[in-house]
Amino acid sequence: MKFVEQLDRAVKANHSLLCVGLDIDLGRIPQKFLNTEDPISLFNREMVAATKDLVCAYKPNIAFYEMYGLYGLSSLIKTIDFIHAETDVPVILDAKRGDVGHSSAAYAKAIFESFKADATTVNPYMGHDSVKPFLDYQEKGVFVLCLTSNTGFKDFQIAGAEEPLYKSVARHVKEWNHYGNCGLVVGATKPEELKEVQQIVGDMPILIPGVGAQGGDLKASVKFGGKRAIINASRSILYSADPRAEAKKLRDEINKYR
Amino acid sequence: MKFVEQLDRAVKANHSLLCVGLDIDLGRIPQKFLNTEDPISLFNREMVAATKDLVCAYKPNIAFYEMYGLYGLSSLIKTIDFIHAETDVPVILDAKRGDVGHSSAAYAKAIFESFKADATTVNPYMGHDSVKPFLDYQEKGVFVLCLTSNTGFKDFQIAGAEEPLYKSVARHVKEWNHYGNCGLVVGATKPEELKEVQQIVGDMPILIPGVGAQGGDLKASVKFGGKRAIINASRSILYSADPRAEAKKLRDEINKYR
Repeated sequence: MKFVEQLDRAVKANHSLLCVGLDIDLGRIPQKFLNTEDPISLFNREMVAATKDLVCAYKPNIAFYEMYGLYGLSSLIKTIDFIHAETDVPVILDAKRGDVGHSSAAYAKAIFESFKADATTVNPYMGHDSVKPFLDYQEKGVFVLCLTSNTGFKDFQIAGAEEPLYKSVARHVKEWNHYGNCGLVVGATKPEELKEVQQIVGDMPILIPGVGAQGGDLKASVKFGGKRAIINASRSILYSADPRAEAKKLRDEINKYR
Repeated sequence: MKFVEQLDRAVKANHSLLCVGLDIDLGRIPQKFLNTEDPISLFNREMVAATKDLVCAYKPNIAFYEMYGLYGLSSLIKTIDFIHAETDVPVILDAKRGDVGHSSAAYAKAIFESFKADATTVNPYMGHDSVKPFLDYQEKGVFVLCLTSNTGFKDFQIAGAEEPLYKSVARHVKEWNHYGNCGLVVGATKPEELKEVQQIVGDMPILIPGVGAQGGDLKASVKFGGKRAIINASRSILYSADPRAEAKKLRDEINKYR
């Protein structure tokens, strides 16, 4: 099944545009997990059990697994395996890769075959041939960084006298979308720009991080994100006192604005 | 010891600006290694033994290890460990990472602490706060992608009416270089632009891939790459009939142009 169909199915089944970011931090995981042999994947298993009827996607960021070396990456593989075994929710492995063609092909193989993700994020800096090996997995989703939620967006993404770089990226990605498997990443901190980007790319999925801790505008993000807005929250859910309640609250608030 | 001192020391000791890219391809590794329990790190061990007095750096691209899952990454760790144990040659782990601050901090920890690299490559798209966690490892080298050797460079890197993006990156990186640990990546396929970039950043190390298979201009790259030009070759050495002879030939040819 194509990623966009998996996504649409989960959006409908769980009446949700919420994506939970599985960003591991062993410093914040409850003690009961730390006393086990595999704290990361047991913690993730509990988070998935608590939220699997409330979300349209899970988004582990591979940085937080690489940080723990081979153990972390082995827990990531287990995590993705049990999400696939126990839910119909697609997994976006947030990896922001991009390299010359044959190196990107190796990354795509890692992400989609070794880690078995349903979708990933990629960096556009190196242009089309750096993204193409990901796109060639026609069933998989590929979210290209466009306008990000961090402060550094202003260094390069909004530069360009005639057209800012992020708009050029959106236009290029629209052209690259031969298999209907492209998406974009646009931060919730930039609602006006999100609106412009959405008008360029239409119904393409837009992954929107930056609500919660980063202070993004939830209402505007839902309103301007289009038919396939995916609103991501990570630590504000995972490390709350009651992750299920927190996820439900955010899902319902998002639904108020749809 | 700071990366740039490690680099200068290896350049001097081995009279070399050659960096060998350890890009693994199990489809091209000789059969004698494939019959062992750990073909990747045994192959790398032989490559290092054959070239360690001929190079100024080794550059494994992590994509080719991730592609083989946990086994590949475990071989990468072993490879970096034995380069450190058996040589004085620094390791640039080519990973092209970049993410929002706290995620980039996790990547930096992975690259410099789990994998123990001496330097890495990063992607500038997300701006200063995405690069800063790498720069904060003051002893480590951070090569920022500037103008790449693939065909996709033209999609975004040369765009910009007043100033092309790659020049803006070079200027920003010069400003970010508080600890003297920045470098740039500029493809050997763009000698005129390399010259301009080198004039912006002075003695900053410039990693120059794209000679050999990609048809870059070796003579111009050495001439215009500045004092710390690092010329990378990967498959043209690793998968030749005689890797030592091939590395020696390229090192000596580079030295003719210095």
